[in-house]
Amino acid sequence: MTEGAFPRTAAVVGLGLIGGSLALSLRAAGARVVGIDTSAAALEMARRRGAVDEGTASLDGVAAADLVVVATPLDQVAQVTIAAARRMRPGSLLTDVGSVKAPIVAAVNSALPPGIRFVGGHPMAGSEGAGIAAADATLLAGRVFILTPTSRTTPEAVGALRDVVTRIGMRPIILDPVQHDELVAQVSHLPYLVSVALLRAVADDARVIAGPTMAEMTRVARSPAALWAEICRQNREAIVRSLARFEGELARLREGIETGKIGDLLLEGEATRSTVPARET
Amino acid sequence: MTEGAFPRTAAVVGLGLIGGSLALSLRAAGARVVGIDTSAAALEMARRRGAVDEGTASLDGVAAADLVVVATPLDQVAQVTIAAARRMRPGSLLTDVGSVKAPIVAAVNSALPPGIRFVGGHPMAGSEGAGIAAADATLLAGRVFILTPTSRTTPEAVGALRDVVTRIGMRPIILDPVQHDELVAQVSHLPYLVSVALLRAVADDARVIAGPTMAEMTRVARSPAALWAEICRQNREAIVRSLARFEGELARLREGIETGKIGDLLLEGEATRSTVPARET
Repeated sequence: MTEGAFPRTAAVVGLGLIGGSLALSLRAAGARVVGIDTSAAALEMARRRGAVDEGTASLDGVAAADLVVVATPLDQVAQVTIAAARRMRPGSLLTDVGSVKAPIVAAVNSALPPGIRFVGGHPMAGSEGAGIAAADATLLAGRVFILTPTSRTTPEAVGALRDVVTRIGMRPIILDPVQHDELVAQVSHLPYLVSVALLRAVADDARVIAGPTMAEMTRVARSPAALWAEICRQNREAIVRSLARFEGELARLREGIETGKIGDLLLEGEATRSTVPARET
Repeated sequence: MTEGAFPRTAAVVGLGLIGGSLALSLRAAGARVVGIDTSAAALEMARRRGAVDEGTASLDGVAAADLVVVATPLDQVAQVTIAAARRMRPGSLLTDVGSVKAPIVAAVNSALPPGIRFVGGHPMAGSEGAGIAAADATLLAGRVFILTPTSRTTPEAVGALRDVVTRIGMRPIILDPVQHDELVAQVSHLPYLVSVALLRAVADDARVIAGPTMAEMTRVARSPAALWAEICRQNREAIVRSLARFEGELARLREGIETGKIGDLLLEGEATRSTVPARET
């Protein structure tokens, strides 16, 4: 497929939360979608939910597609992407949705067969759900999809993937893979770890009185631990840097509380103080 | 008013977000509501929104009420509650909605005129909005309302306030004022400070790619800084303890990342890993 064209046939490898949601979006935008997953139950549910036109357990299913999206668990993305590339038609477009980009992009680029156009990708979306059962095209609508080309990626391949992203209602942003990992550590991996620490720090007897803020700040802590453990492994250095920065900010706030100067450190809301009658008692 | 009875006339002092929402709820449940605020604009909007039957700038308006709720900014709650008590009819019920309870309850109890039944209160609700314009009875529906009686409070007064709370659709929970401050530091004050630190720790260029998690985890950081500065002042010790506990949990997570053992520390979600085709490439 070329820039400006929408894939006639797309293959999605790994029908989980993100893969399933992308399959629904691609199909809604007019592509014929081949779903690939070794789980018969996932394939069956993907068919039932209208996410795929056909399903197969074999990676050979990518041969029919002019766009292949690899959405397996993170620890398998690089090797499955390379395996898919070897089965694809020359000229086809290949992307993945791994949450950490530098290691995947380096591994795939070093093993890419000639004629396959690979651009790393990362849709900034998700939910505390998991699996095809939780997949939903509205999870993606309006969200950022980061493309991570390198000096080895042609501008034409970037343009082709950017067009697909736009057609399914997402907002394409282009970043270098290393820069991606640094920024995502800050806006995604750090908030997750903070959410886990918060849940761990609060005593059980305090939770019964918790209001909506606690619920919303600990929602992401419940998302799949196996995925996050792998993210922490693959993006360790950037995550440790973002944690150090956060710990520094928290220490400043604590110091402000201890010295009575916390007011200077808080962020201004649009407060309208209600005013009250005379203070004399 | 007695246990089991709903107030015929309730006065709400301070028509901000919480005061306005309580006025709406009390009125919807059948009380005549007198709104008291020195801001003519707040009184006018409260009338227009149907939150009050009548409004006045004078605290003398509490004389007509059998239930008085003080919902001023936190730094004024204790003195306004005492001033209201001196103007109330003997036998009437008095509560406040200050977010920190031990200092307020001690100050009010030490100055309470005979015949006035005071029970400290704290509705665990709110939004990033502020003022009567953002008031909404649905903010309170189904939320916890903490009552903080002491040895000086009669069981009958606690029962009367508990009944009112139930009638407006909130869930009454009874806590000692000091225990309240300790638990609220964990589930409310700590999450706020964590939210502020997160927003401060994330670089501007990272925010453009932020997904929904970052948005939801930093929402509360935008709520009125003046209120939070006062909460930090009044509940300093409990907040510092909860911060220390959180910092300890975060340090454990960082160590887990550095040593590759993070998987043991994360919380199990309901992950359904999608499975994928053969790994050989």
